[in-house]
Parts: sequence; C-alpha cells; structure tokens
Amino acid sequence: MKMSELYVPTLREIPSEAEIPSHQLLLRAGMMRKLVSGIYSYLPLGYRVIRKIEKIVREEMDKSGCQELLMSAIQPKELWVESGRWENYGPEMFKLEDRNNREFCLGPTHEEYFTALIKDEIKSYKQLPLNLYQIQTKYRDEKRPRFGLIRSREFIMKDAYSFDRDFQGMKAAYQNMWDAYEKVFKKLRLKFKIVEGDSGAMGGNESHEFIALSEVGEGRIAYCDNCEYAATDEKAKVSYDLKCKDEEEKKVEKVYTPDLRTIEEVSAFLKIEGCNFAKALIYKAKDEIVFALIPGDRELNEIKLCHYLGIAEHELELADEDVIKEITGACVGFSGPIGLKKGVRLLVDSRITKMKNFVVGANETNYHLRNVNYNRDFSGEVVEDLLLVKEGDLCPKCGEHLKMDRGIEVGNIFQLGTKYSKSLNATYLDENGKGQYFYMGSYGIGVSRTAAAIVEQCHDDKGIIWPLIVTPYHVIITVINVKDQSQTDLGEKIYKELDKLGLEVILDDRNERAGVKFNDRDLIGIPIRITVGKRAKENIVEYSLRASEDNMEINTDKIIENIKREFKNQDLDIKEI
Amino acid sequence: MKMSELYVPTLREIPSEAEIPSHQLLLRAGMMRKLVSGIYSYLPLGYRVIRKIEKIVREEMDKSGCQELLMSAIQPKELWVESGRWENYGPEMFKLEDRNNREFCLGPTHEEYFTALIKDEIKSYKQLPLNLYQIQTKYRDEKRPRFGLIRSREFIMKDAYSFDRDFQGMKAAYQNMWDAYEKVFKKLRLKFKIVEGDSGAMGGNESHEFIALSEVGEGRIAYCDNCEYAATDEKAKVSYDLKCKDEEEKKVEKVYTPDLRTIEEVSAFLKIEGCNFAKALIYKAKDEIVFALIPGDRELNEIKLCHYLGIAEHELELADEDVIKEITGACVGFSGPIGLKKGVRLLVDSRITKMKNFVVGANETNYHLRNVNYNRDFSGEVVEDLLLVKEGDLCPKCGEHLKMDRGIEVGNIFQLGTKYSKSLNATYLDENGKGQYFYMGSYGIGVSRTAAAIVEQCHDDKGIIWPLIVTPYHVIITVINVKDQSQTDLGEKIYKELDKLGLEVILDDRNERAGVKFNDRDLIGIPIRITVGKRAKENIVEYSLRASEDNMEINTDKIIENIKREFKNQDLDIKEI
Repeated sequence: MKMSELYVPTLREIPSEAEIPSHQLLLRAGMMRKLVSGIYSYLPLGYRVIRKIEKIVREEMDKSGCQELLMSAIQPKELWVESGRWENYGPEMFKLEDRNNREFCLGPTHEEYFTALIKDEIKSYKQLPLNLYQIQTKYRDEKRPRFGLIRSREFIMKDAYSFDRDFQGMKAAYQNMWDAYEKVFKKLRLKFKIVEGDSGAMGGNESHEFIALSEVGEGRIAYCDNCEYAATDEKAKVSYDLKCKDEEEKKVEKVYTPDLRTIEEVSAFLKIEGCNFAKALIYKAKDEIVFALIPGDRELNEIKLCHYLGIAEHELELADEDVIKEITGACVGFSGPIGLKKGVRLLVDSRITKMKNFVVGANETNYHLRNVNYNRDFSGEVVEDLLLVKEGDLCPKCGEHLKMDRGIEVGNIFQLGTKYSKSLNATYLDENGKGQYFYMGSYGIGVSRTAAAIVEQCHDDKGIIWPLIVTPYHVIITVINVKDQSQTDLGEKIYKELDKLGLEVILDDRNERAGVKFNDRDLIGIPIRITVGKRAKENIVEYSLRASEDNMEINTDKIIENIKREFKNQDLDIKEI
Repeated sequence: MKMSELYVPTLREIPSEAEIPSHQLLLRAGMMRKLVSGIYSYLPLGYRVIRKIEKIVREEMDKSGCQELLMSAIQPKELWVESGRWENYGPEMFKLEDRNNREFCLGPTHEEYFTALIKDEIKSYKQLPLNLYQIQTKYRDEKRPRFGLIRSREFIMKDAYSFDRDFQGMKAAYQNMWDAYEKVFKKLRLKFKIVEGDSGAMGGNESHEFIALSEVGEGRIAYCDNCEYAATDEKAKVSYDLKCKDEEEKKVEKVYTPDLRTIEEVSAFLKIEGCNFAKALIYKAKDEIVFALIPGDRELNEIKLCHYLGIAEHELELADEDVIKEITGACVGFSGPIGLKKGVRLLVDSRITKMKNFVVGANETNYHLRNVNYNRDFSGEVVEDLLLVKEGDLCPKCGEHLKMDRGIEVGNIFQLGTKYSKSLNATYLDENGKGQYFYMGSYGIGVSRTAAAIVEQCHDDKGIIWPLIVTPYHVIITVINVKDQSQTDLGEKIYKELDKLGLEVILDDRNERAGVKFNDRDLIGIPIRITVGKRAKENIVEYSLRASEDNMEINTDKIIENIKREFKNQDLDIKEI
C-alpha cells in the first residue's frame, strides 16, 4: 500500500484525554478514533492489528477442537431473568426495547444464550463434549470507561463455552482452554502471568485470569516466587503475621481525640501503631447497613465483602454521612463497634478476634476508645477474610512472602459447573436415559484490549514497536526524496518485489520532509524499515529495525535475506504470513 | 472435521415459522437458529458460509482500493439529529440510553458516522479520493421481520463510503464499486440483475440495486429485453397506452350502486371497464390528509407518493374509516374527488387528466358518479407519476413492453452527492484553499442476506446445493458401516489425504443408518461426496456431486483427479482455497 493513499491520520499532539501510552499511541498513530467516551473506531492500520489477533485466536481455538459460530449481540430479557442476572448484572448492561416494547440487552457476555442454544438440541451424552466460540462485539456500559481499548464500552471479545457431562469433563475442557490461551498469548509475544481469579458475576467455581504485565494495568496481582501461586488482588487469600502482643486485657479507656478522624492522625496522637487499631467501614449493602471491622493497617477487599454478603458489586456502596451519624450517633471518623444502633450488621475480620487492647472509634464525636477487646467488649459475625492482599503478605500455599505486580486482564477462564444449566434447566440424557445437567465452562479473550496490551509492552517514547506477528504491515519503505527519480524507481521496485513474496509493505511515497516520514514510521511502529536515499543509484539502501538503534547500509540484493532473518528471530516463517 | 464432533443439529421437520426454502433449509441443515423474531445465530456450518462470503467481499473491496476499518455499532443521537435522520429514520431504528441517559442508536447504516470521522481529519484535496469500508453487524427493527436471513433485525453487512472532490470523482467511485459488486456476485455464482433503485432514506441522487433473482424475493423489478433498462418497482417510471376514447365530455350522472364498494364490483354492475374509473386512496401523511386519485386499473406506488410529499415512508399510512367519513361524508368505497371537505390535499395522477367520462365515488354512501372529467368537474395537484409499474408497461427508455421479475436485494450503491457533507458541514480545502463539500457515495452488500439468496438459487427438495466457493466444506466422506474396519480405515485415510491438500472435508463417522447420513449430506449440501461402502477392501468408493444425479464407482487413486475437475468446472483452483 502506498502511504499517499493509506488512511493513517497521525497526530503530532498527545490527545488530552489519553492517559496511558497505548491509548495515546493508538490515537496518535492513526489506528483508532474515539466517537464518545469508551466507544472507538478502528482505522485501517488498527483494524489490521485486530484482525491479526483474531486470526491467531481463531487458529488456536480451532486447533483445540472448539467450533466457531456467531450469536446475535441482542439478547432478550427473559433469558437473563431465568438466570437471575437481569437485575444482578447491574447498570453495566446496556438495555433497550424494540418497537413492540419487548425488552432486550446488548450482550455483555453469552452464558445464558449458549446454554439456551444447546438446551433443546444436545439431547444425548453421545454429543458431548462440545466447545463453541465466537469472536464478537460485546457491550458493557462501564461506569468509568478509560484507557482507550483497555476499558471501553463496545469491544471485541472471543468468548467460548464448553459443555460436558461431568466435573471431570469440565476440568479437561478448562485445561484445554488454558493450554490454548497460553499458546495464543505466547504467539502474541506478550509477557503474562496466569493467576487465580475471582468468578464475580459469572458465578461458578474455579477461575483464572491471563494478565499481561504492565505498570498501567488496572489489575493488581499477588504472586509467589517460591511456588507457583498467583492470584488477583480481588481473589488472593490474605495471611500475615499479626503483630499482636500476648498481653492482659486492659480496661477500656475513653480518650479525647479532637478532630482526629483518620487512623494516621489518631495513631500519631496516641502514639499507638495502626495495627493496634480496628478500622470501621460502613456500607449500604443492597437493603441493609453493614459495619465492617478490620485491622487498622489494612484495606478492605470489597469483592470479598460482596461474596460474603451474597450481593453484586454494584449493590455495595459506602454509606454517606447521614447514615453514619444515624447508626453511630457520631460524626464520620469516630465509628466503632460498641454501642451501634440495633439492626446494624457487624462483620468482623477474623484477625480482629486475635488482637488485644486495640483502639476503636467511640461512637461519640471527638472520642476514641482504647484497650478494646473482642468478645469482652463486643461481638459480631466473624468473617475469615475481608482483607486486600499487599506486598509481603504470606503465600497461602507455601508461606513465603508475596510480591505484587500490575497488569491488564487479557483473558479469563471460568469453571461454571452447573450454575447456568440448572437455572435454565438444560439437561442431556446419560447412558441410563436419565436427565443430567451440563457442566459448563466459559472462556474469554479481550481481542481489542489485547491490542492495547501489546502496545503497552511494545513501545518507546517515539511510538509503537509492533511484533511481526500482529504488525499492520511488515515492512515500510521510505523514499527520502520523491523528486529524485532514481529513489522513487528503486522504492517502487523493492515494494513490488516484497509484495510478490507475500510481505505486507507500505511505500512512503509522500512528498513530505524526511523528518515527517521518519516520525510517522516510528510512531506507527512498522518493525522492518528500508530507507531509499541518495545511494539509490548504487542500489544501496538503509536497513533498520524499529526495535533497535542499528542502521546499516546494504545492497538491495541483501534485503530479503535480512527480512528473513528478522522473521526467524521472531519465530516466524515468511511463508506463514 | 468428523461429523461425530461437528455441531450440526439437523432437523427432520420443517420449522413451522419458515415460509421460504432458504429459511427452512438453513434451519433444517443446522446452519442457523432463531433467538427471537428476526434475530438469528449462525451455527458452525452456517458461519463458515458467512465467512467465505465475507472473504470474497473483502478481496474485491481491497482490490478496488477500498480500505477496511471497523466503526462502533453504537452511535450517538447527536450525529443523526444533525443529518435530520433521528426522527426521519423512524421506528426501524433501535434506540437506547446509556447509564447517564445519553441517547444512542444501534447503527442501521453509517453515513453520518463516516462523514463525522472524515470531517476533521481529511483536510486537503490531496488526501482524496478515499473509500472506506467495514463488514459489520447492523440493526434495523423491521416492522415485519421474516424469511429468515432475508429480512432480519440484526444482520451482517458490508458498507462502504466514498469521499471525492466533485461530482465526476463521485461518479468514478460509483462505477468502481459497481464493477467490484459485479465481480463479487459473479464469484458467488448468483444470478442477478442490476437495476435502478430508489434512494429512499439515503437521500442523494442515482442509485442501483443488485437483485439476486428469486421467486420468493420481496423485491419486484421491471426490465426491458430490448434495451438495458431495469428498475425496482418502487423506482420504475410508469408509461403505458391509455385506453381513453377521444369522445365528447358527457353530462355527469349520479348512479345508485348499493353496497358496491370495489372497482371490480361497480365495474361489473355498470359494465364499464376498470380503466375508466378513477380510484381514490386516502392517506394520513405526517400531519395532513392526502386524497390520491389514479386510474382504476392501476396500483398506487407509495414510495413515489412519499417522495412527492417529501415525507418518510413510515410517515404515510392509509386513513381509517372515521377519517374517510369525515372528509368525504360517505362510507368507505364511495370516495371521489368532487365535494371533498376543504383542506384535504387532492393529488391527481397525470393520466387522470387525459381520461374522459370516467367513474368516481360520489362521496355519498351507495352512489357513484359517471361521466366525470378533470378540469370541468374538479381539479387538484397533478402529479406526473404516482403509479406502480406492471408487466407490459412501456420501457421509459425504448418504448418496448416491460417484463417483471422478483428478486432479493443483495447489494446497493448510492450517489449521495453532498447531502451528508452539507448537513454535517464536512469540507476539505481545494487547490485555492477554499472549503468544498465532499461528494460522497455509499455502498452496501447484505452479507447474511446473500447467504440466503444463494440458498434460494441453489437447492432442491432434498436440501441445499452449495457452490464450491462458499460451501462450508468441500467434500463429505460417508462411511456406510462404521463397524466395518476396512470402511472406517479407508474413510480415515482419504480424509487425511484430502485434508493435507488443503481441502475442507467432513468425515461422516457416525454410527447411524446409511439413510440418515445420506439425508443429512443432501440437506447440508456439501458439493462433492465420497461414499465408502462394501468395496472398501478393493479401494473402490462411490464418487458423486450434490448437484447431479450421477454416481460412479472409482478407485481411490482417481479421487483427487475428480475433485480437481469439479473445482475447474466451477472456475476454481484447489490452491486458491
């Protein structure tokens, strides 16, 4: 393709709304455009990347025995009511009505729909196992769409659903998808970790996330270098050495702590460490008020709290000042477990029960209580673990200290068990003619998000550095001076030769300054570059890679050999392309 | 793929809701399933067909210089308000709100969006011409979704949009797309006609439709065998020999026509031919009542009426009995142009002005008037042509008699001119630095509808007969008796050999009766069939084509030669696959 004809509207300025490199670069490189918050178009170069990612996903899915189909994005309300997710899914679901006022949603995911599809058609155990996938546009009305393709409202996803006779079958399907996903992300040359995930709105049993490592990732993971343990911070089970002294229970004292509302302030004032405080968090949880108490030096994990309460994430929110005043009788900052209004549900992280003589809010403005002890002074529902993991906590498998990292969730796999087959009453007949619920799994890859994750891992301050396997074009030929006939002729000649080999080539034939062309090619990140300049008459061109600083002059008859070497370096064969 | 693993839920019974062959067969062959009215899923076999059609469309678009991208399906209301189509598009548009109550639609088409995309990015005439396309899921909330993929509410479409400097440029882009479309539909082996179309909701100038010929098609076309003229019935200009006698204007007579309401009834009663009647049609057209008068033996073309009135199709509806009574003073069946209530807009087809002594309703229940004459007895707005074309009308180009045919609209091309660039204020700078509006074209191919059109043209009473270029698999190998080891071994051996050649092969290895397998293979329509039966030990198999009755016994070493011949017959090379 000639650059003069290619639609690549590059931008010099960083668009103000773009906070992270992939978002900035995909916009600047003319690969995508924003329509409205969280909704993007893929321009020609960007869409070539998307399609290449899709191709790799498709190949690995097909190899794994998964069969491709395509469902509608529109789904009727009834399916979601049956599964109980019409309400539960919350405001992230785009809902609409048709001209006859029938209610629908735009599928954020397709568990219900696949279950309903299979339900009346797979009748016998002989037709199992079955694994079906689609690559489709999905819709989630994110509360805070951001980071471009990383958290958008309309996005491309590969989703697969497996149907098995029993738990063992489901486990095998899960492992099969695990292996296929590893292959996909390795092929895409992503640095990633596979971590235990939270099943969230999916329900079901075990789940894992494939996290592309990245500083800007919204996902935080805890992992152990000693063993294989790794989990999202939402999921990771918290274990750590409590610094509680084995001392006598002392007498409760009320202390005057004027205007000191945070644990840091009170801790400094009383000269008592934060770990000897019990921190109160008050929530509106669906229809009730919940008072959670955790060690003062820790953060609460809201996902764990939701699971314990059996509510959806969007049903939990921090209580406002009025509510706090009503249930504690005091201003914000002085809440404690003693003397709460009746009817408030008091949840106590299990660590609190082991602490001695700790500080809590007095439920009286400007006062705290010290030397409070669980059981003696108050009691509540003890919850084993309400805490968010942090660096240095103990590995729940081997006891070593955990490390933390950040990343972008590019894939996830879920063991759903019989959650959906039961709620939608989907059964097959076993050998004895007896109806049995399907054991299901569901498996997602964020295709558009993966494109962004690749950019996060493959860029420098000049632009993107595409791996050959997903680059929109393999080679860019830059003609320095298009008014020099020998240069344009040679550029054209090389362009045709490489094209004939099946390589995807851009010929930058624009009548622009060399600097503009160099900046554009750095920005759009084509991996292999050929520069045709003054020595065109001698058949000498410059050959360089986007990923390295090296730049060498070579005779044109060495071009193909060099390109082949680079393909080989990236574990590819030109013929594969 | 082994049939035992492939998800192809064939049905024996014809689903009751399916009225036409493609709808019935795509369901029965396990290629698609209905979710709700007008919304379908493509199952694995069906989706392979869709993807093959997409591939051919993509290839021809790319060859024509069109660049692929992908826009979002969700579009904000504002864009459509600017173009004036938010209201105009009518109830066919799916509308929705996001969590912040911002209004959106699901794109039924993308003229506004592409114009807005280009608007701020293409700044100079140097960047033109430009032609962009996408293959995308589109949404139209059809009033009467039916015929399966032919009129569905969520469907796959290729849409392209060209941007040019001027009218000439637009014409060239239009011709370029015309040529590409011809290639696409020829490759797909469709029998089709290219006909003048009505621009409808698109606006703009010239347009053409690509109509796949089919008895069940909803589209009716008029065409001339003498010249190249062809047009949709919505568009075709009506011209015919009026059978009006050149006689004196006689005196108006009121005649008693008790309970005779239709022209047929009154015609028989009065012994006057229908062509000597003036037929009245009363409409609610947006905010007014319109009384249209046409020759008694013709049908009114509502599209032409809408264009004349400058309203959208959904804004026109036949008036109900109460309205008719109010404006005519009579019951339905006795309406006429004389003595209408004031304020009613009277439209008169130009042919009426040439008729003599015709019959009209008397605007009095049970009475008609005869010997009525235009001008002498009444007058109104004369409209040149309000009629629907019919067989035998005169070709507006050469005067020969027209023929009529039916078909399915699989593609359309529109010259939009500056309609959208003006309404969205999209300009580029010409050589003199002066802002000029883009000249645009828009071009659609109904991908999923095309699949149905192919089935309409390629089936018999046993099932589908896929052309090789779009068949889900090229070859099916049927093992008659899977308990006979020599048969299963030979089936497996041929399967592997053909697979190695890059052919797409189904091995029917199911433990089913031969009759079941034969029925299924006829139904799903795989073009090349190999039957492995009793003579497996001698390496003799049966070879047959789905499209013919012939069945021959051949040695296995002749299989590839036979397959190659069939590919050649269909203008394909195995290597192309």
